[in-house]
Amino acid sequence: MSNVSGFAEERVNRRTMMKGAAGVTAAGAAIGIGARLNGGSVQASDLEDMVQSIAEERGLTPQDIKAALKTYMPSGVHDDYLLFASGGHSGQVLVIGVPSMRILKLIATFTPEPWQGFGFSDDTKAVLAEGAVDGKVLGYADTHHPGLSETEGEYDGEWLFINDKANARIAVIDLRDFETKQIVKNPHYISNHGGAFVTPNTEYIIDGCQYATPKSWGYAPLESYADEYRGAMTFWKFDRDAGRIDPAKSFSVELPPYWNDLADAGKGASMGWMFSNTFNTEMSYGTGGGDLPPVEVGASQRDMDYLTVINWQKAEEVVGAGKAEDVSGMPMIPMTVAVEEGLLYQVPEPKSPHGADVTPDGKYIVVSGKLDPHVTIYSFEKIQKAIADGKFEPDAYGVPVLDFESCVEAQVELGLGPLHTQFDDKGLAYTSLFLDSGIARWKLGGEGIDDGWKLIDMIPQQYNTGHICAAEGDTVTPNGKYLIGLNKWALDRFHPVGPLLPQNFQLIDISGDEMELLYDMPIGVGEPHYAQMIRSDRLKNIWDVYPETGWDPQKQAPSEVATQIGKERIERDGNNVTVYMTSIRSTIRPDFIDLKQGDNVTIHLTNVEMAMDATHGFAMPGQNIQLSIEPGETTSVSFVVDTAGTYPYYCTEFCSALHLEMMGYMLVAPA
Amino acid sequence: MSNVSGFAEERVNRRTMMKGAAGVTAAGAAIGIGARLNGGSVQASDLEDMVQSIAEERGLTPQDIKAALKTYMPSGVHDDYLLFASGGHSGQVLVIGVPSMRILKLIATFTPEPWQGFGFSDDTKAVLAEGAVDGKVLGYADTHHPGLSETEGEYDGEWLFINDKANARIAVIDLRDFETKQIVKNPHYISNHGGAFVTPNTEYIIDGCQYATPKSWGYAPLESYADEYRGAMTFWKFDRDAGRIDPAKSFSVELPPYWNDLADAGKGASMGWMFSNTFNTEMSYGTGGGDLPPVEVGASQRDMDYLTVINWQKAEEVVGAGKAEDVSGMPMIPMTVAVEEGLLYQVPEPKSPHGADVTPDGKYIVVSGKLDPHVTIYSFEKIQKAIADGKFEPDAYGVPVLDFESCVEAQVELGLGPLHTQFDDKGLAYTSLFLDSGIARWKLGGEGIDDGWKLIDMIPQQYNTGHICAAEGDTVTPNGKYLIGLNKWALDRFHPVGPLLPQNFQLIDISGDEMELLYDMPIGVGEPHYAQMIRSDRLKNIWDVYPETGWDPQKQAPSEVATQIGKERIERDGNNVTVYMTSIRSTIRPDFIDLKQGDNVTIHLTNVEMAMDATHGFAMPGQNIQLSIEPGETTSVSFVVDTAGTYPYYCTEFCSALHLEMMGYMLVAPA
Repeated sequence: MSNVSGFAEERVNRRTMMKGAAGVTAAGAAIGIGARLNGGSVQASDLEDMVQSIAEERGLTPQDIKAALKTYMPSGVHDDYLLFASGGHSGQVLVIGVPSMRILKLIATFTPEPWQGFGFSDDTKAVLAEGAVDGKVLGYADTHHPGLSETEGEYDGEWLFINDKANARIAVIDLRDFETKQIVKNPHYISNHGGAFVTPNTEYIIDGCQYATPKSWGYAPLESYADEYRGAMTFWKFDRDAGRIDPAKSFSVELPPYWNDLADAGKGASMGWMFSNTFNTEMSYGTGGGDLPPVEVGASQRDMDYLTVINWQKAEEVVGAGKAEDVSGMPMIPMTVAVEEGLLYQVPEPKSPHGADVTPDGKYIVVSGKLDPHVTIYSFEKIQKAIADGKFEPDAYGVPVLDFESCVEAQVELGLGPLHTQFDDKGLAYTSLFLDSGIARWKLGGEGIDDGWKLIDMIPQQYNTGHICAAEGDTVTPNGKYLIGLNKWALDRFHPVGPLLPQNFQLIDISGDEMELLYDMPIGVGEPHYAQMIRSDRLKNIWDVYPETGWDPQKQAPSEVATQIGKERIERDGNNVTVYMTSIRSTIRPDFIDLKQGDNVTIHLTNVEMAMDATHGFAMPGQNIQLSIEPGETTSVSFVVDTAGTYPYYCTEFCSALHLEMMGYMLVAPA
Repeated sequence: MSNVSGFAEERVNRRTMMKGAAGVTAAGAAIGIGARLNGGSVQASDLEDMVQSIAEERGLTPQDIKAALKTYMPSGVHDDYLLFASGGHSGQVLVIGVPSMRILKLIATFTPEPWQGFGFSDDTKAVLAEGAVDGKVLGYADTHHPGLSETEGEYDGEWLFINDKANARIAVIDLRDFETKQIVKNPHYISNHGGAFVTPNTEYIIDGCQYATPKSWGYAPLESYADEYRGAMTFWKFDRDAGRIDPAKSFSVELPPYWNDLADAGKGASMGWMFSNTFNTEMSYGTGGGDLPPVEVGASQRDMDYLTVINWQKAEEVVGAGKAEDVSGMPMIPMTVAVEEGLLYQVPEPKSPHGADVTPDGKYIVVSGKLDPHVTIYSFEKIQKAIADGKFEPDAYGVPVLDFESCVEAQVELGLGPLHTQFDDKGLAYTSLFLDSGIARWKLGGEGIDDGWKLIDMIPQQYNTGHICAAEGDTVTPNGKYLIGLNKWALDRFHPVGPLLPQNFQLIDISGDEMELLYDMPIGVGEPHYAQMIRSDRLKNIWDVYPETGWDPQKQAPSEVATQIGKERIERDGNNVTVYMTSIRSTIRPDFIDLKQGDNVTIHLTNVEMAMDATHGFAMPGQNIQLSIEPGETTSVSFVVDTAGTYPYYCTEFCSALHLEMMGYMLVAPA
């Protein structure tokens, strides 16, 4: 067997040569040494012996060998896909390489994270403050559904959005530097779920209210639920040039106090519309402290809930025409107006739905009913016809409810607890089965397909599959190849780590005739709900370092407080002290800050290095300060020194052999 | 090729049968299907074709195939080792399975983490408050060195300790539930590094001051550095029965204002002593705002720094005899007393040392000098003889400096930037080379070994290796088998994720004649410094669920505020409201909390389930409340409702098909 270091060296060189080549093809093209299996240092017979011997020692089956070889990434070879997974109530986003299933990065999104300095620097504190609720800055979120920006219905690799279910917020992540730039708080409701789903050109980010409250979560007794409580669907306008959601151009559509669940934007045939499933049309609010049934009973009484159907392009016109009301500073189209304008409909759907997924061509909407073993497929064309034909009756709020039979294309029985559907490149659909712990594969139907709308097979999962994610499986051009089950329970899958267990992502190969399990990945850093998988070569704009020295990552522009080497200084104005600081291997300048108790201090710190990976950190003991300054970045932190003492600050990123010497002293003399 | 689901099913059953069997042997013994390679559905020739075909498609070399097969863990098969890695300035600890290199859990340690509810519940807020500095509760740490508890010099799998370099704190993690139970702030200094290293029976956790300050980080001008600034070494007493560090029985030894780096406890031959390398004996404090050289120059002037040698058993006696001084509430042995009592010595060591590692037999201490291509090996016996023979001169502080030649056993030239040494089961040592980006393997010498103290070979690393970790490689019985390079730079190893890159852990097989690279693991959730790898079968006491319903994880005893099903209630006393709450799939009781603006609320929440993995979460919008309640746990949270409104609370852990219905309403009427 050859020495590995020789191969690894070769790979580094080839990789360097290939720099800029598409990640997707690099694994195969950059190496191209499969032929060595016959002609190299290992003969076929040696290889067989080696495989046999390791398999016996480690108890590997032939399928295990196959899976190992299909997921292993040699040193320096990049994954073909990146998976962006929500972190659930960790409040973060995970970036995972596929097929290796390695976590490449945790992106601090809603929760302060000191390795990244998120929530510690002035500008990231401001991002968190923007997302305050009732004036309180929060230190967590319940992230559910990441939404990659799209152009013509395909991922464009530029932006990522994600919702906070717990507090009805949306975060914006820039995929040049993988950092969170904005958090917006929904002014109309306090709880969301059907977000962040984007329209085909990222015109809007859809965000649906889950638990109904009075508008803007004001106070009203539960007895007034039907009258005072409301749902809503918000359309956040995204300004690509600014890289920000523009609340001034965003709006909501008022809805009955049903609870909105998952949503999806129409595309292709259904461009301009959106679909959300809606449950608790029973309007249960639980016992209310009395004898009413609890929600899990009260909200499961009716055989049918609704698919909510909104024409968002029409809604945009209606808002433009001034027909919306101002509610807490943002327009809301009243239900009455939405109905009059013909932009809001409901279609009955089987009980307790979860998942409304539009097929790649935009012609159909697949709905899963958690308490129904079927998926129900609606035809967008039939919905339009039912509207045109007036085949509807108003619900208690006057919202038209279309005739079920007129809108349904098909129903396919899949198994127990269907939740969420994804698509591949061969006209197949995949639906998670929470109660059956599996993923069903079935064939889409429609014009020209005789044997469609039919279950093909099922792969067991371990255990309780929630969402699933196929490669670009919710876009107009699904990739096929890989599917991931986001399993909620792990039980015995991994070595015990105490009563709080990881989740389990199971990677499945869907390229062949049979679905094959490739890998079990523990997720022990949060509870992902949904994930999106993007071909890595679509991520064209990732920065290795910031564009120039003295860069402000919040503005994505040169910083006004950047400092060059030799220009470091401390300026005092009364008890306001401003420190213009630089870091470079292995010095922080200035290395001495002389203060008086009570001083207000601002440090502007520039990492003047432009070498890839030459990140510096900055910790100031006792002050809750921990910054990460990537190559070229300028960042700032402000604080008050209210205690006299001696505080050695230092670089927290192990940057060089003399990294421990990269420090300085802040002295605070007693007042 | 067989359908994977058949194999997987088989494995689940076997695993269930084997429950409680040692993890180490499970992979081989529980499966035992290597024989199928010849007799099963895949013939040897098919296998060869399959391997060949996948290797060609994916560009895998024979070495890649070997590595893939040596690291792949089939679904449900548990890793042989657990790696506990510091999270650096993330302030957390990572638990990683070896050889699969999968993150099994991030343990919230010093930084609030909402998935675990750490820093959100009342008891975990109290843990963080215990670690406050100057009265400020901190939200981060710079964790460097995890220390597993030991019995007779071997890991016993019961406790984990870790330091916070930035603020001189130590955290205690209970390895029954993998949760942080205690944070202690060092009252004597503000910055540590040489912690958390345990003595062979976990009598003490060693914690050495890094950047010197006046005692208890009081104010004194830098000009008074030599007179007023001091180092120290703290010995934290661990009370195993209480599961807590006992500050009342802990103490420090005062040291000159040199900077203490890594430490290790003596063992075997050197039991009762400890060793720390000490740099900046030049006493540089940087420019001081003037013309003095910066630290990276000032602290690198002398050819020799010191190995600090302390007899901690003697120190314990001295403290017991009342000869220590009280400094900020904890005893400190003055240098003069330490010298008089013969418990403190220094031995010259080559410049800018990093790493002082005691050999498994305790006879030698291996020191790396970052700016010296050698490791220097000291003989404990020779050190003792030099002390007995009076071969020392006092330094400026009166601390005896032993004669270098009298103490040194050998020096071995390894390469550039040696940092840290680990050991295997074959008498070999492994030393990281930061500047050479590699790991040197060399042979230990000593009595009866003719060809010892000799370099054998080197494996390249990518890139800039800091610490390294061999399986149980710092204990009295190293395991060999696996070695991990904790590489500080990743550069081109992984798909780009913006200017802040992951670290790179490289897993190396050290069982054979050549060191072989097995796996590159990105660490994108912090910057680990040191890690310890423990055989998974040593972790005997891990709880799947808490011992009984209504368990207080902080006290590890039944909770006084646990609530049983049917006993849920809301008690009001003026504007103090106490809610006794339960969660069980799929209901939170009570599901209605009726409040007035200004009420002080305490919720005591019990997860009454005792099924493994049946964790529930609890989020209250707008209140910054996110709890994780594992099976059996009771936890509490207190808050003030200062805003009127309607707040739907819910279970954040996707526990069941009707999980979305597991909610309630908190109403706050205007005052």
